[in-house]
This record gives sequence, C-alpha cells and structure tokens, in this order.
Amino acid sequence: MLLCDIGNSSANFLDDNKYFTLNIEQFLEFKSEQKIYYINVNERLKTYLSTQSHFINLEPYFAFDTIYQGLGVDRIAACYTISDGVVVDAGSAITVDLVSNFIHLGGFILPGIANYKKIYAHISPRLKGEFNTQISFDAFPQKTNDALSYAVFKGIYLLIKDVAKNEKLYFTGGDGQFLANFFDNAIYDKLLIFRGMKKLIGENPRILKL
Amino acid sequence: MLLCDIGNSSANFLDDNKYFTLNIEQFLEFKSEQKIYYINVNERLKTYLSTQSHFINLEPYFAFDTIYQGLGVDRIAACYTISDGVVVDAGSAITVDLVSNFIHLGGFILPGIANYKKIYAHISPRLKGEFNTQISFDAFPQKTNDALSYAVFKGIYLLIKDVAKNEKLYFTGGDGQFLANFFDNAIYDKLLIFRGMKKLIGENPRILKL
Repeated sequence: MLLCDIGNSSANFLDDNKYFTLNIEQFLEFKSEQKIYYINVNERLKTYLSTQSHFINLEPYFAFDTIYQGLGVDRIAACYTISDGVVVDAGSAITVDLVSNFIHLGGFILPGIANYKKIYAHISPRLKGEFNTQISFDAFPQKTNDALSYAVFKGIYLLIKDVAKNEKLYFTGGDGQFLANFFDNAIYDKLLIFRGMKKLIGENPRILKL
Repeated sequence: MLLCDIGNSSANFLDDNKYFTLNIEQFLEFKSEQKIYYINVNERLKTYLSTQSHFINLEPYFAFDTIYQGLGVDRIAACYTISDGVVVDAGSAITVDLVSNFIHLGGFILPGIANYKKIYAHISPRLKGEFNTQISFDAFPQKTNDALSYAVFKGIYLLIKDVAKNEKLYFTGGDGQFLANFFDNAIYDKLLIFRGMKKLIGENPRILKL
C-alpha cells in the first residue's frame, strides 16, 4: 500500500514500510502504477490531485470530533492515532493539538524552526546565523545566537508545556525529535500521520476498493 | 537638543519634546542645522553617519555593565534608564533584557509581531491574515487566526513572564503598549531609549561641546 502526505514544501510517502520524501517539483513528476492513498494541505495541488485517477483522497473519510474551523487534514490524521494527549507536528510550521478522550480541544500554530531562522535574517543581518541547539533554558543569553536560540526554543517549550500539563506528548515532523528532547513525557514518532491514515483505512476497508 | 535613534527600518527623532519618525530613505534626505546626537544599530548606515560632521555618535560614551557580546546600543540606552527590572523593546524585533542593580544579566530576541505575520504568510497562504488582538490565553484556539494569535502572543507573554518573575516591566517600541497590557506590573514608555540618551548626556555634559 502506498500512502502519501502532501504538505506545502514536500510530499512524504510510505510504501509499505519504506519512507521517502519528494519536493513538490519531484512529486509532480512522480509516476506510480499503484493507487496512492493521500492527504493534502497544499492548496496549489488540490485541482491537480482531483484530476489524477490513481490518487485517492482520504480526507472525506476521517470522522474526527472537533469544533476547530478548517483543521488541516495532516493534523487530523496525526491526532486520529491517540485517545488523549498533545500532538506536535514540527515542520515548516509547528502545529500543537490537544486531544482528550478522542475529542480535539483546540490547537495553535507556531512558525517552524527553519522559518524562524529566515525571519531573523530578514529583520537584520545582525540576526543571521545558526541556532545553538545546546542552549540552556536556565541561563540568560550573553550573545546574539544564544539570544535567538533561547527565544525560539524556550518559547516553543513554554507554550507546549503550558498546554500539555501532565499529558503525554507525541512529536512528529522534521524537527519533532529535536523538540521531543526538551520533555520527559515525550514520544517521537516519525510516522504518526501515516499511522492515522492506516488506522482510517483499517476502519474503512472499502476505501481499498475505490 | 535633537536626538535620534536609528534602527533597521526607521529613524526616530526627539526634537526637544517633539517626537517623529522617518523611514530610512527619508532619513538619508533629512537636513538639519542642529547637531544630531544619535545611536545607530543599522549596519548599512555606519559609514555614512561617520562622514557627517553634525551627527554625534553617543555609543562610545555609554558605560554599561554587561558581559553580553555585541549588545545593540538601543538596548543599552533603554536599559540605562533603570536600576532593576526587565526592558522589552517591541519593534521589528522584540528584545527582552534583564537588569539587576544596574547590571545587565542577559537577554533574548524574538521576531517582532509584524514579522511573525510575514513569516506565516510565507509558510502557507492558509496562514495569511490579521492576528486577533483580543485572543484569550485561557481557551484553546478553534480557528486558524486564533491559532496563530495564541501562539505568537502567548509565546511572547510566557517568555517575558518567565524571565520577569515579580520584577518591574518596562515596555517601549511600536508594539510596546499592546504587549504591556498583558501584564499587571508593566510600564509603557514610548521615549525610554531617548531617556537613556538624555541621562547619558546629563552625566557627560562635555558631549554637548563636541
């Protein structure tokens, strides 16, 4: 079974147990004999995907309890895997969603770490540089790189800690493993979104007949 | 006395008690008969300013106790006004500095609110829009605009609260008044940096003879 999770900058595939990533240009040239069960949040690709008969959109099949208006299907798929806890998907944006007894209680969206770096460089050449991934949260920064790293990483940490309280934390996405290290009660699962897609298909086997 | 605080996107003037702002192009065309006592953090203007005889750079006169490497002179001037507390300058970047008994203990730098908006729009057209300035910190967001507003404003709030503890908070900069409203023990002072410059000149009257 070939699964695909399409975002704004890349498309992630899971071919049985083989994981790979294509950028959007590569994705548009990707040919497959198999059906591709996908979710997509990239507005620019919606029309294209709807015209491709071997692409099966899983989005309509998710029955997910939320009052959030316009919750991205990638966030739905990730939250669909858990009964209780906080899901953090750290990619080009960092989405944080709270689930309690299979009900989505809300969420928030931070810029992704690479995008923080971009915006600092845009603000001033003085603020251009690599983040210090070893930054301490207990000492006040004494140079620019540390001042940026502290603000970004501790800011993300405090927001997640504030919402998580003692709930379990599930991280996914390119920076998920790095951010998971800030917490004691965190699980990193690179394939969280795919697990949600697989769970959905398991519950609705007729999808495979489409 | 004509004072000027030059940043990356604009130059703020205090002409006795009259405050005005020029963008950088306007600033480069600004003519003055008076001497201009200035501080500048804009790298691109350093050479130009050093060739202008009526521009007097105040930076060398600040004797400020810090081990922070390369602390911007605007942050020094703002911190120079207080003995104890936290100084927040919310402009194109948001700088947060902690001062105890006239000693600078460190600081950190967040993107400014308008730059958060830019980076969200850059990440995805879905994340484009105005922030909700009335966002509640006690309810989980249930739509995109609230999800962004909560992340930005509560993120800034939690970081400042974490460093401030019960210290007094001094806000300045374009978004200073808005952010000050999140706190009980906050003072907004639009002219904080100019007060630091005036204090310096008061302590070193020979500067006026330059």
